[in-house]
Amino acid sequence: MINFWPSELNTKIVDQIIDIALEEDIGHGDLTSKAVITPATIFTGAMSAREEMVCAGLPIAGRIFTRYSKDIIWEADVIDGEKVAGNTTLARISGPAIDLLTAERTAINILQYLSGIATLTREYVEAISDMDTVLLDTRKTTPVYRHLAKYATRMGGATNHRMSLDDGVLIKDNHIAVAGNITEAVRRAQKAKLKKIEVECDNLDQVKDALKAGADMILLDNMTANQMKEAVELVNGKIPTEASGDIDIDTIRTKAATGVTYLSVGRLTHSAPAVNIGLDWSHRV
Amino acid sequence: MINFWPSELNTKIVDQIIDIALEEDIGHGDLTSKAVITPATIFTGAMSAREEMVCAGLPIAGRIFTRYSKDIIWEADVIDGEKVAGNTTLARISGPAIDLLTAERTAINILQYLSGIATLTREYVEAISDMDTVLLDTRKTTPVYRHLAKYATRMGGATNHRMSLDDGVLIKDNHIAVAGNITEAVRRAQKAKLKKIEVECDNLDQVKDALKAGADMILLDNMTANQMKEAVELVNGKIPTEASGDIDIDTIRTKAATGVTYLSVGRLTHSAPAVNIGLDWSHRV
Amino acid sequence: MINFWPSELNTKIVDQIIDIALEEDIGHGDLTSKAVITPATIFTGAMSAREEMVCAGLPIAGRIFTRYSKDIIWEADVIDGEKVAGNTTLARISGPAIDLLTAERTAINILQYLSGIATLTREYVEAISDMDTVLLDTRKTTPVYRHLAKYATRMGGATNHRMSLDDGVLIKDNHIAVAGNITEAVRRAQKAKLKKIEVECDNLDQVKDALKAGADMILLDNMTANQMKEAVELVNGKIPTEASGDIDIDTIRTKAATGVTYLSVGRLTHSAPAVNIGLDWSHRV
Amino acid sequence: MINFWPSELNTKIVDQIIDIALEEDIGHGDLTSKAVITPATIFTGAMSAREEMVCAGLPIAGRIFTRYSKDIIWEADVIDGEKVAGNTTLARISGPAIDLLTAERTAINILQYLSGIATLTREYVEAISDMDTVLLDTRKTTPVYRHLAKYATRMGGATNHRMSLDDGVLIKDNHIAVAGNITEAVRRAQKAKLKKIEVECDNLDQVKDALKAGADMILLDNMTANQMKEAVELVNGKIPTEASGDIDIDTIRTKAATGVTYLSVGRLTHSAPAVNIGLDWSHRV
Amino acid sequence: MINFWPSELNTKIVDQIIDIALEEDIGHGDLTSKAVITPATIFTGAMSAREEMVCAGLPIAGRIFTRYSKDIIWEADVIDGEKVAGNTTLARISGPAIDLLTAERTAINILQYLSGIATLTREYVEAISDMDTVLLDTRKTTPVYRHLAKYATRMGGATNHRMSLDDGVLIKDNHIAVAGNITEAVRRAQKAKLKKIEVECDNLDQVKDALKAGADMILLDNMTANQMKEAVELVNGKIPTEASGDIDIDTIRTKAATGVTYLSVGRLTHSAPAVNIGLDWSHRV
Amino acid sequence: MINFWPSELNTKIVDQIIDIALEEDIGHGDLTSKAVITPATIFTGAMSAREEMVCAGLPIAGRIFTRYSKDIIWEADVIDGEKVAGNTTLARISGPAIDLLTAERTAINILQYLSGIATLTREYVEAISDMDTVLLDTRKTTPVYRHLAKYATRMGGATNHRMSLDDGVLIKDNHIAVAGNITEAVRRAQKAKLKKIEVECDNLDQVKDALKAGADMILLDNMTANQMKEAVELVNGKIPTEASGDIDIDTIRTKAATGVTYLSVGRLTHSAPAVNIGLDWSHRV
Repeated sequence: MINFWPSELNTKIVDQIIDIALEEDIGHGDLTSKAVITPATIFTGAMSAREEMVCAGLPIAGRIFTRYSKDIIWEADVIDGEKVAGNTTLARISGPAIDLLTAERTAINILQYLSGIATLTREYVEAISDMDTVLLDTRKTTPVYRHLAKYATRMGGATNHRMSLDDGVLIKDNHIAVAGNITEAVRRAQKAKLKKIEVECDNLDQVKDALKAGADMILLDNMTANQMKEAVELVNGKIPTEASGDIDIDTIRTKAATGVTYLSVGRLTHSAPAVNIGLDWSHRV
Repeated sequence: MINFWPSELNTKIVDQIIDIALEEDIGHGDLTSKAVITPATIFTGAMSAREEMVCAGLPIAGRIFTRYSKDIIWEADVIDGEKVAGNTTLARISGPAIDLLTAERTAINILQYLSGIATLTREYVEAISDMDTVLLDTRKTTPVYRHLAKYATRMGGATNHRMSLDDGVLIKDNHIAVAGNITEAVRRAQKAKLKKIEVECDNLDQVKDALKAGADMILLDNMTANQMKEAVELVNGKIPTEASGDIDIDTIRTKAATGVTYLSVGRLTHSAPAVNIGLDWSHRV
Repeated sequence: MINFWPSELNTKIVDQIIDIALEEDIGHGDLTSKAVITPATIFTGAMSAREEMVCAGLPIAGRIFTRYSKDIIWEADVIDGEKVAGNTTLARISGPAIDLLTAERTAINILQYLSGIATLTREYVEAISDMDTVLLDTRKTTPVYRHLAKYATRMGGATNHRMSLDDGVLIKDNHIAVAGNITEAVRRAQKAKLKKIEVECDNLDQVKDALKAGADMILLDNMTANQMKEAVELVNGKIPTEASGDIDIDTIRTKAATGVTYLSVGRLTHSAPAVNIGLDWSHRV
Repeated sequence: MINFWPSELNTKIVDQIIDIALEEDIGHGDLTSKAVITPATIFTGAMSAREEMVCAGLPIAGRIFTRYSKDIIWEADVIDGEKVAGNTTLARISGPAIDLLTAERTAINILQYLSGIATLTREYVEAISDMDTVLLDTRKTTPVYRHLAKYATRMGGATNHRMSLDDGVLIKDNHIAVAGNITEAVRRAQKAKLKKIEVECDNLDQVKDALKAGADMILLDNMTANQMKEAVELVNGKIPTEASGDIDIDTIRTKAATGVTYLSVGRLTHSAPAVNIGLDWSHRV
Repeated sequence: MINFWPSELNTKIVDQIIDIALEEDIGHGDLTSKAVITPATIFTGAMSAREEMVCAGLPIAGRIFTRYSKDIIWEADVIDGEKVAGNTTLARISGPAIDLLTAERTAINILQYLSGIATLTREYVEAISDMDTVLLDTRKTTPVYRHLAKYATRMGGATNHRMSLDDGVLIKDNHIAVAGNITEAVRRAQKAKLKKIEVECDNLDQVKDALKAGADMILLDNMTANQMKEAVELVNGKIPTEASGDIDIDTIRTKAATGVTYLSVGRLTHSAPAVNIGLDWSHRV
Repeated sequence: MINFWPSELNTKIVDQIIDIALEEDIGHGDLTSKAVITPATIFTGAMSAREEMVCAGLPIAGRIFTRYSKDIIWEADVIDGEKVAGNTTLARISGPAIDLLTAERTAINILQYLSGIATLTREYVEAISDMDTVLLDTRKTTPVYRHLAKYATRMGGATNHRMSLDDGVLIKDNHIAVAGNITEAVRRAQKAKLKKIEVECDNLDQVKDALKAGADMILLDNMTANQMKEAVELVNGKIPTEASGDIDIDTIRTKAATGVTYLSVGRLTHSAPAVNIGLDWSHRV
């Protein structure tokens, strides 16, 4: 049994989501279970992967059960970040049947969602595992899930890009347009003293400008693999480079082969399909 | 311009999500924009569909901008539920550049997410639009998004199944196991006086039992199209039938052709990919 | 000792009320007790019924004490729903005197209020205990107390009607007026698929219309016993009937004798007088 | 029209109650009205007293409607504290029919409850209106309603006793027992420098002690009218006196005739029956 | 070890401050410690006074650590109100290094702040410790800190004046101006029945008026020591007197020598400098 | 009139403080004003500096008044950051007298506190205004006030150091001890990709190590001016340097003369005395 709360998970954020989620699914209570099942009925059950997947959110699923009812016992058999085959038991659960049936949908929903992100992320990570390029996530997360979605990409093996808008400077086209040019934009951004400055570039001229202006990192936006290659050569290892735009499982190796330091992929968090997780109960007589 | 708040959207739930979402993305503020752009700079911009899609969440996206800053003006050109071609302008926005850039990611994230659900749902609805079967969603929604995800499936053209566990009786296998048999389970459930009773059945014998027990609706769980057909014949229009399990865009017409009243599909809400929405700013000099 | 938390009581709702209640009564603290009594003083006491009553809210009273101070011990001798004679000890309590005196008024206030509802309800239930008619409560509860007031009527022996406006369809005069007629109103209401439909009728013609329209239950509003009788005969057991309006302890048997399935009574929750509960402390030297 | 917010009503407390109350009654929405009535339907209506009553809470009822929907217009015709005959129009209301029907029960519930308190209080006040004795309320209020229940007694014509435990010193039997005697209890209480000190006395000896100890006010607890008379003579106008216990509409004049300064009555707030208020809608075509 | 929670500290108020404080200092976490230190690293440390001080807030500092992480152990060696020399160990702390370093700044900040108030207060108290005059604080506290700042002045040895505007009547110049004169202002204030009435006076005529009007206490505002002396003679012990305005450590004895009952000093809470407290960690290998 | 809300002030944080602050000072209301003053009484008044000061928090003071009562009008005459002489009018205020007197203490308290910080900060800034060194604040702020205290130091002319622990990497002695040496600590910290790395050094050897390890900035901790000079020479402009410890108004020029880039001073926020601000009302007849 592995009941382990990852220190990187903020309980305040997690509990806020749990509380809203339980309330939205339960309302005045599970009508059916309360009508059909007596309070004394005890269930034991197993949560299991119905397909190959990378787990993310198991401690959260457990917390949903035990936060909902102090009489539920949760025993995880797998830790987040582990890749398991189909039919693997993820956790064993027992307690009052009414409580278990009332909380189960919320627990499964969040686990399928986060593990979906981790599983898709792992697929991308493994696609370039023999290369030097590092996979990054983005800020394209379902609102309210920034903290958890980025946890799930870490479980999948990616590295987090900015958590939020105050977590680093990233100068984009609109900033450059307002400032007049990259040099001026970087100069203004240097006010944020303890922050590195990344500059988004659409072409090689901008890459040159960014280098000259003292950027700490360059984001190659929507470039072809050939453009990326030229940009990487231009930068020549002086600072790290990142590429984004149109990266999917078919193109990722080509993009990584350009030598870019990072690839950032929005679909890891905005379009990962849920994985299939089941929960089977047996009824202790 | 269509600035319209759908009365079916609960502002309290929406605002709770908006507030958490803005805070998680902004933190101490958009470092880059605050450093590079002066407060007096005004942007005007257009949000547009980058692919064909069914919109859901436009009023929410607008509310994110105007809730974040009273100086932002939002003018929608499309209403939720409308299917638009790629490159359609969805809304025009103007206001202080710093405010706009600070709020835009949150607005786009939620709009891409909800429109993704509506778009996938519409695809399923259209696939059976010449048939009598009605498409239902499920409770398999990303936690915290029950209200909005079910709004998005309605925008897509589906009908909502239960909002929550207190919103109708649905007797499943575990309830039957505890009660001993379907008759007893239905009898107990009749305590919930103003609720109809739906019974999940795995086979024809259970369907017979449920009919006899006085069920108000029957859920055919994970049956083949042939089994479904037999069940529908057995029920013979006395009460509505619903089928769930393994329904995707390739199988939906076959399943609908069985004559079942409803088809419920989890992936509408748990696995819809985001649609692509862009936001282009121009900088008023 | 019976320290038992009824699973039907939602702790989140209860604790919200407790927290507001303690704060409104205590403010900066119990000036008198803090000034006159030393922190080390220990009290033991007994809460007792000063008249015959049906208890409701004892676990809540206990929770008020123990939530206010971890040093208070609460031991109930009676469970909610029990009818006790005057001078029955309901619970024994001990702990720091200052804490006990600070929390006692809040605990007694809520217990007297809820037990008042349960006691009045029991009186009505007993008045028709030899008849088939079932007593219902209504939505006429003191705001904020819906959950607890309906718990108290259950403890009194009544059955709950709708918890809230989303908990069943009840078509009233205004709905009929807008729809044009009962048939159309019922047709529109059938959109709410998993809900039974109750129709409020003022006269026999409406009862006929409601039956024809497919209503699942009929509410006979403000009818005389004779009208009720005719309506019940008309319905003839096809669907359940409910009567409301002008039902008090003097008229309830006559109304029940009409054969109506349910009688719903607003005064159970909006006009029940408090019962008298005392709390005597002794001072351990 | 009199739309007037009494400055003595704390909007924060009122809004907290309104928000909980609307949520508990509405949940996912008024199923029936949403199904049967179109959003464009407009109602106008009148709220009226169905019996003679003293109003309390009309501005709160109005706030419930207008807080729930910005499209509702509320126009009061009566102010709180006014005594009206049966069939008096209290307020006129108009707006979207769905919104009005959704909010009306909450508005009526609170208005019937608070006006019930004001009406009962007025009855007691009028019973002794030709005498010098002043009517006080107590802390025996339904939890969460301290602020509003005490507002309602003021509207009824009573004077408020302590709002909460930090709002004055009241030395009771348990305090005296712990301190050893009244003199010591008063001495300790004088720590609370800016507070007057009231002492609860069961007999004349205690009254003498309290006077000697320097009490600022004396509470005659559960005394007969004769005992009260003697106590009042003993005190001889040096400080005010208050009597409590067993005071109802039949005994109040006798008790007041003893010359006591204040009479405090718990039932004003814990056992006032609701008054009957109706709401009739007409449907603008 | 003295781990003691003072019953006079309201945990709800304290925890609200702690939660806001931890969040504002931590955000997404202590970047440096998370990057450099492994989760298994354990620290033990000692918090110590770096100068002579009166402690206030030690239990709060401990609660910050243990509320932030259940794995932190806090052992206080000193209780609030104790005056300690420089280099005295105040508490010993151990637990996961990352947790300790993450929470330490918040704990030290609040302890230095509250002990600063207690230390300054003690200095004033000691300055007049051989005299009868009692030192009072004021309502001039940093907003949000009323409860804690007044706790700190008590730890320093002062007595609290009003906690808030509902905690006693204090008639000031503006009230007198509106009422027309002191007599009328006092008459109106006597509505607040259980409250003593203090009147702020600028000169001897006002003191005479206040006495005649029946004030329970007189505040001598911004008077010279000579004026104060005359006022005290005039009052002649009938009621207590308080003086405020321009009282500092140099003038306090002169002011106290006038025989005034209380001296109230705003700077105790609005201008106390922080005391110096250190925290040294050792790293268990 | 200058009614201007600085975009750098987060209204959510400000309003949270305002709401707690008003509640803690007001409770059930301003007893005195409610008793003595009629609701119709209107005051106009002027808030003015009673000594030379740098203003910070004027828009917050205004927001306190107008948030408390919509009938209050606030007109500022000065903007935050402005240095004003004694007797300068800062703002003019008018509205219902009861509301004004109820809110004034909270408004003055926060304005005196924040302006105290700004005024002390300005003194330090002016002391080195002819030198290149920049003044920084620290994280030594009164808990709950991080956002506002750092706003006040900016108004005083300082530059903000880290807002919170996630706002940059600062490797201190304990981090170095755990990592083994500076090189290893810096290497680990480089995980935080978009962050610059500052290293705290106690001596010249550490400065050399930090430079070699690739630190982006060096903090000279508690060094003498001579040591600082040597360190600055060693760094030789390659990266910025910061010094902290024992910097007050007497030593700041000597420390700045060492050529260090930044000086950070804790007392700006933890020990600034309040400035003196008055509020005079006149009573419109």
